[in-house]
Amino acid sequence: MNFPTLSDILAAHERIQAYIHRTPILTSSAINEIAGCEIYFKCENFQKVGAFKARGAANAVLKLSPENRAKGVATHSSGNHAAALARAATVAGIPSYIVMPSNAPEIKKKAVKGYGGEIIECEPTLQARESTLEAVVERTGAVFIPPFDYIDVIEGQATCVLELLEDQPDLDIVMAPVGGGGLLGGTALAVHYLDPDIEVIAGEPQGADDAFRSLQTGSIQPNTATNTIADGLLTTVGKLNFDLIQAYVKDILLATDPQTIEAMRLLYERMKIVIEPSGAVTLAALLANKERFAGKKVGIILSGGNVDLGKLPF
Amino acid sequence: MNFPTLSDILAAHERIQAYIHRTPILTSSAINEIAGCEIYFKCENFQKVGAFKARGAANAVLKLSPENRAKGVATHSSGNHAAALARAATVAGIPSYIVMPSNAPEIKKKAVKGYGGEIIECEPTLQARESTLEAVVERTGAVFIPPFDYIDVIEGQATCVLELLEDQPDLDIVMAPVGGGGLLGGTALAVHYLDPDIEVIAGEPQGADDAFRSLQTGSIQPNTATNTIADGLLTTVGKLNFDLIQAYVKDILLATDPQTIEAMRLLYERMKIVIEPSGAVTLAALLANKERFAGKKVGIILSGGNVDLGKLPF
Repeated sequence: MNFPTLSDILAAHERIQAYIHRTPILTSSAINEIAGCEIYFKCENFQKVGAFKARGAANAVLKLSPENRAKGVATHSSGNHAAALARAATVAGIPSYIVMPSNAPEIKKKAVKGYGGEIIECEPTLQARESTLEAVVERTGAVFIPPFDYIDVIEGQATCVLELLEDQPDLDIVMAPVGGGGLLGGTALAVHYLDPDIEVIAGEPQGADDAFRSLQTGSIQPNTATNTIADGLLTTVGKLNFDLIQAYVKDILLATDPQTIEAMRLLYERMKIVIEPSGAVTLAALLANKERFAGKKVGIILSGGNVDLGKLPF
Repeated sequence: MNFPTLSDILAAHERIQAYIHRTPILTSSAINEIAGCEIYFKCENFQKVGAFKARGAANAVLKLSPENRAKGVATHSSGNHAAALARAATVAGIPSYIVMPSNAPEIKKKAVKGYGGEIIECEPTLQARESTLEAVVERTGAVFIPPFDYIDVIEGQATCVLELLEDQPDLDIVMAPVGGGGLLGGTALAVHYLDPDIEVIAGEPQGADDAFRSLQTGSIQPNTATNTIADGLLTTVGKLNFDLIQAYVKDILLATDPQTIEAMRLLYERMKIVIEPSGAVTLAALLANKERFAGKKVGIILSGGNVDLGKLPF
């Protein structure tokens, strides 16, 4: 597989720039004191659609050939990728078809509709999702844009750490969460190009620890069951992303749900930002392994902020 | 009264720069669409101690003469000024004495202690506050730093809009909330110097509308009773600040509590930031008067983010 080069990633950043926010980096001396290191939070919770997913989706849509573009894009997702793809398509003036399980939360369906996506409901099984998507693609001719294991998406997610390192170059460590691995894979690849001395370390929920087990054993170990509040990180890591993780990620650290909730609370109380549980897993993993980070300069990508405010876990 | 000149305010900014965050400006196309104008949010909820008060307190402490400095500072407050003064004093290596009513929330006392302030409790009456403060000042020789009606504090609060206009110069309107008026007075003065074509408009809770009534009648009309969720804006506007408001503030717009809660929700959901009710009053006042702002570029100072997350009003 030909992974994106550094100039591919730089070109992606140029391409999507007008369609995304350049998110700020925030710091908190209170959290630094608790953590025993110096943390720079790259706030992708402030990104368009409330998550880094806006980057990959915009890049994938903008790279479509003119003839493909006309027919639109399709995906199956009930999470941030669905909203991100619907928005990217609408901004580009093309249709998007989003296959969602019939039991997806109303708030997620509303978001996709709000961004101009057309929802196609299916039974809540992986098989139904895939067959429904196949039928949609056949009917419409739309291009399937997978949520994470897809080069143009990985290339888009890689642009986030470009900004982080431009604003804060002298980091020892960069952290990202890992679910399907698009953000982690892209981040690790870009850091490898820009400054291979920087270690890339992932945070993963203990209740969905496929990437951790996969990295240990050297082959993808799917989640058979998942049990975590971090609902954006339930998927098993993708093949392309696993290649990047094996090549360029130093370590995957686990966080329990109570640790993630405590990290969430710190981010709300001390940083005054709204974060979804998946976005707090990296800080939780850091705090659970303080000695590993003592005195270091650490960039943390806060992945997203789409949370039901009526159901905060504290 | 000699109000600060522009170079006084610029010097204050220089003076406090190492002790405060340069807070980011965030935008939300979703909120812009709802509001019908272009809003630039200056996020002082990300400021040290979670509120703009860090600016005025730092400036007041750093301007003390060496002999005054040694004896420390004192104030009576149960809000953000208490925490801000305690922090500014600790950073400067001097003691701070904070008079707080015995029924002040534990969380506020904890914050003051956490920043190194010494709490002196008193009965929960204004008279007890004042007499206790007087006794403390007599005993310790500490300098009383009032929360808002005090030149060095106003000068410090004025630095916030310097940053806003430096980052986003072509605004039509700047908005700030008004309680005691330190932020509003400082903001109006600085805007008058930097670009008098920019209108300064305040937001005030309907349940504590003293500044609104004062501006209408031309003399300070104290609150006899207050009833609002915006607990940082209960005080009656100060004399110095009222002079500045009369001279340089175009309008004061009121917001009801339901409007403030709705604005808070928008800021949490769309901007992913944590805001205290007092911080959302300006956006609420704007949304209640959309026609006044149609198509304009509006800078809004989001004043603070210290809120009990267990008691969000939605």
